[in-house]
Amino acid sequence: MNTRKIQQRLMALRNNKAFELFVVGVILFSAPASVLTMVSWLDTFITIIFLLELTIRFAGEENKRHFFKSAWNIFDTIIVVASLIPVEESDMAFVGRLLRIFRVLRMVSIIPELRILLNSLLKALPQLGYVMLLMFIIFYIYAAIGSTLFAQINPELWGDISISLLTLFRVMTFEDWTDVMYETMEVYGLSWSYYLSFIFLTAFAFLNMVIGIVVSVIEKENAIEDASHNTEPTMSDLQKEILALKVMVSQMNNQAPSNLQNKEGGE
Amino acid sequence: MNTRKIQQRLMALRNNKAFELFVVGVILFSAPASVLTMVSWLDTFITIIFLLELTIRFAGEENKRHFFKSAWNIFDTIIVVASLIPVEESDMAFVGRLLRIFRVLRMVSIIPELRILLNSLLKALPQLGYVMLLMFIIFYIYAAIGSTLFAQINPELWGDISISLLTLFRVMTFEDWTDVMYETMEVYGLSWSYYLSFIFLTAFAFLNMVIGIVVSVIEKENAIEDASHNTEPTMSDLQKEILALKVMVSQMNNQAPSNLQNKEGGE
Amino acid sequence: MNTRKIQQRLMALRNNKAFELFVVGVILFSAPASVLTMVSWLDTFITIIFLLELTIRFAGEENKRHFFKSAWNIFDTIIVVASLIPVEESDMAFVGRLLRIFRVLRMVSIIPELRILLNSLLKALPQLGYVMLLMFIIFYIYAAIGSTLFAQINPELWGDISISLLTLFRVMTFEDWTDVMYETMEVYGLSWSYYLSFIFLTAFAFLNMVIGIVVSVIEKENAIEDASHNTEPTMSDLQKEILALKVMVSQMNNQAPSNLQNKEGGE
Amino acid sequence: MNTRKIQQRLMALRNNKAFELFVVGVILFSAPASVLTMVSWLDTFITIIFLLELTIRFAGEENKRHFFKSAWNIFDTIIVVASLIPVEESDMAFVGRLLRIFRVLRMVSIIPELRILLNSLLKALPQLGYVMLLMFIIFYIYAAIGSTLFAQINPELWGDISISLLTLFRVMTFEDWTDVMYETMEVYGLSWSYYLSFIFLTAFAFLNMVIGIVVSVIEKENAIEDASHNTEPTMSDLQKEILALKVMVSQMNNQAPSNLQNKEGGE
Repeated sequence: MNTRKIQQRLMALRNNKAFELFVVGVILFSAPASVLTMVSWLDTFITIIFLLELTIRFAGEENKRHFFKSAWNIFDTIIVVASLIPVEESDMAFVGRLLRIFRVLRMVSIIPELRILLNSLLKALPQLGYVMLLMFIIFYIYAAIGSTLFAQINPELWGDISISLLTLFRVMTFEDWTDVMYETMEVYGLSWSYYLSFIFLTAFAFLNMVIGIVVSVIEKENAIEDASHNTEPTMSDLQKEILALKVMVSQMNNQAPSNLQNKEGGE
Repeated sequence: MNTRKIQQRLMALRNNKAFELFVVGVILFSAPASVLTMVSWLDTFITIIFLLELTIRFAGEENKRHFFKSAWNIFDTIIVVASLIPVEESDMAFVGRLLRIFRVLRMVSIIPELRILLNSLLKALPQLGYVMLLMFIIFYIYAAIGSTLFAQINPELWGDISISLLTLFRVMTFEDWTDVMYETMEVYGLSWSYYLSFIFLTAFAFLNMVIGIVVSVIEKENAIEDASHNTEPTMSDLQKEILALKVMVSQMNNQAPSNLQNKEGGE
Repeated sequence: MNTRKIQQRLMALRNNKAFELFVVGVILFSAPASVLTMVSWLDTFITIIFLLELTIRFAGEENKRHFFKSAWNIFDTIIVVASLIPVEESDMAFVGRLLRIFRVLRMVSIIPELRILLNSLLKALPQLGYVMLLMFIIFYIYAAIGSTLFAQINPELWGDISISLLTLFRVMTFEDWTDVMYETMEVYGLSWSYYLSFIFLTAFAFLNMVIGIVVSVIEKENAIEDASHNTEPTMSDLQKEILALKVMVSQMNNQAPSNLQNKEGGE
Repeated sequence: MNTRKIQQRLMALRNNKAFELFVVGVILFSAPASVLTMVSWLDTFITIIFLLELTIRFAGEENKRHFFKSAWNIFDTIIVVASLIPVEESDMAFVGRLLRIFRVLRMVSIIPELRILLNSLLKALPQLGYVMLLMFIIFYIYAAIGSTLFAQINPELWGDISISLLTLFRVMTFEDWTDVMYETMEVYGLSWSYYLSFIFLTAFAFLNMVIGIVVSVIEKENAIEDASHNTEPTMSDLQKEILALKVMVSQMNNQAPSNLQNKEGGE
């Protein structure tokens, strides 16, 4: 009886907005602290608060099994538990720091709106897969041609395929791309066509990607809207009603005169 | 009776298009004057015109209390009244100039179309809030990693988290980002993955933000359009009508034969 | 009778696709010729062809007055007639060359698809007007602040308001904007907030502009589509039909029993 | 009978997902191999696998004529057959390498999703044609003016029309465009208007292009959606049903009373 009461209080605390804001505050404060100062006692203090908060959330959960079904809870547990490991060894120091940096991601697990936003971003990812593959093929072909033709001109930019891929990404972001072009144009006068066709192809593919996503998002919205109007009868519902009515009238039409006919005949 | 007539004339003047254009003209003229010359008598002259214009608008308002309910009127009053304070002291000189610069914003309060445009911009702001927060978290994690790894390579770019944030913003705008990358790649050969993943993440989040706004704007437009078609009967209205008709026909169907049956039986 | 026949032939020639392609070819050829060589006899030759083509189009027009109602025909006439003026004087040489360059714009007047495209572009212009004005106000305020604060640091970039406006446009295009920022940050450490807020405001205003245009274009498309579905009966049409049916059934319902009642009563 | 069984097995193999993945793997492996090492026996080995795969697909096709109706099959055959030609001669070495690079495009012919994506990209191309032509006219006029005015200032950037076109493309991508502008502004103080108007015109035309494509894609999607709802009855279908019902009721209305009337009259 007593544990149940405590659990209910912990649940209330977990859903408390002020508690949420306090944890967000600690996260925001912990973030720079973890990188800049690394003061031992401060780090320990933050870790203890996080551990307390996680314990409250775990204790506040009625069904303990449900707690670890949420990927965000698992993420939180790993981050907090891993923070407990001391990071004095030089080898692990960087990993320990990195872990403390990722504590800022806990903000996503605590603020529900951010969780929704991130989920919608992750849902759009598979859709981008094939466009990314197509863009990689374009990049690859140009990198292969570039490293074949321009490797002798500037090995730092076109030395092999992987370096060429990086150089092409730079060209796509328009970052000093003319310097790259003018250099190769001194040897191959027509190499401007290589750069221009690449820019057109990638910009065009990117454009298509954006449009594809916009259209699919609008479609989904429309589908959701259509589904929300589900209680509204459809055209075919109405047609069925009218057909049923027609059958009723036609039955009556046949029955009524037949009765009257009978009557007449019986007269 | 006399004051009422004057008020009506002032109201007519306030709504006069030529008066509006004259004030816009004074604003446009005042703007460069306030910065470049700061000729005392010219500034005084402009301030007097603005004071007159504000007085006309205030006097032209029937209900004086309504005047200060508009944020734009309060903004206008502050700007004009503050312009009256002389700005000879060296400490206040910059504030006085700044105030005179902001007089150009009065254009927004005078041209109604600009006011509508600005209001619609402000309404979109809260919607952007969470996306901004998510982008800040991405920026923060990358800045923390960047300042940890690259601080020794170039302290001017990666010295601490706030400098790293500025450097990352620069990378996001593609401004000489390859110079930043090539520098760190000399020490960490794989640091290109740091920059590329950052560019992909921020570009992707930005893209989602834009799409989110487009979709929500289109949805609102659709909602407004739907509301304007309110007088049109819905499917369910039609269904109700058809059902009522069915009841009528079925009643008739039962009644008519039963009467005839009775008649037959009674024969 | 004879002139009528000639006119019909000229009209046919005017609408001939091969003739259109030939003129497009001459335009494409004339363009570089007019700039690079300026060979006297070649220029004369092209001018004669254009004169002939215009004469054919004018003669092929049934109602001569309609010809000059089209802005494109007036434009063509001015360009062609002005080409007849010799350009040997040094003062007029540049104007003459410019005129020959604008002959490439005749392509728009000859290809109907381009004419439609350009018209739709011009229609979108007024819509952009107020957004442009709002952006100019943003630019203006920042230029005024910039020229007040940074004029001593670098007069070439912030010397006066007009130079500052150009520098801000450069910042908006992200062209070496960090160089501009780092320079002023040496004096004013917080001036990064000036640049970042400017980039956010202009990017946000630009974004809104794009979205506004997209939404208004989609709305127009929907309006056109709605209008094309005009023959389709609306919900209220259907409702009227059903109501009429109900009246009919209810009349029958009242009539039939009353008849039967009468019969019964008469029995 | 035996060949038929073999063909069916080959068809099954052709449609096998594991087989598809194996070929994609060989393509991915072949790509770097073809450029970097060019080891003779490895290249031969890959060519043989591709030849085998093509043979299987050809043999698996029931109607041999259908095989060459697909542009992708023709593309595959050319690439694979051309790979058989030895590339020892110095003249043909580059063409041979290029051909081996294009083998990565076979990925598109093997993965159906990429084929659909590329087809949709190609379908959008003609739509872009006229916008591209309009942009070229804008580019051309500015290049002609630029090469006339600025040729003496910097012949490397404005030497002739083709070089000016390249410089203008650079200006459009904002790549060090202020360097180009500041140079000409030393001679022509107002040349900033040349660059700004060009940037506005091209950005505006580009914007319109993007919006045009978005709208047309959304329209197509709507059209497809409308077509998919084809089984759903339209408003006019419902109207016809109701009209038929009205005719039935009105017939009954006339018949029933007339019978009853007759009866009454006969009484």
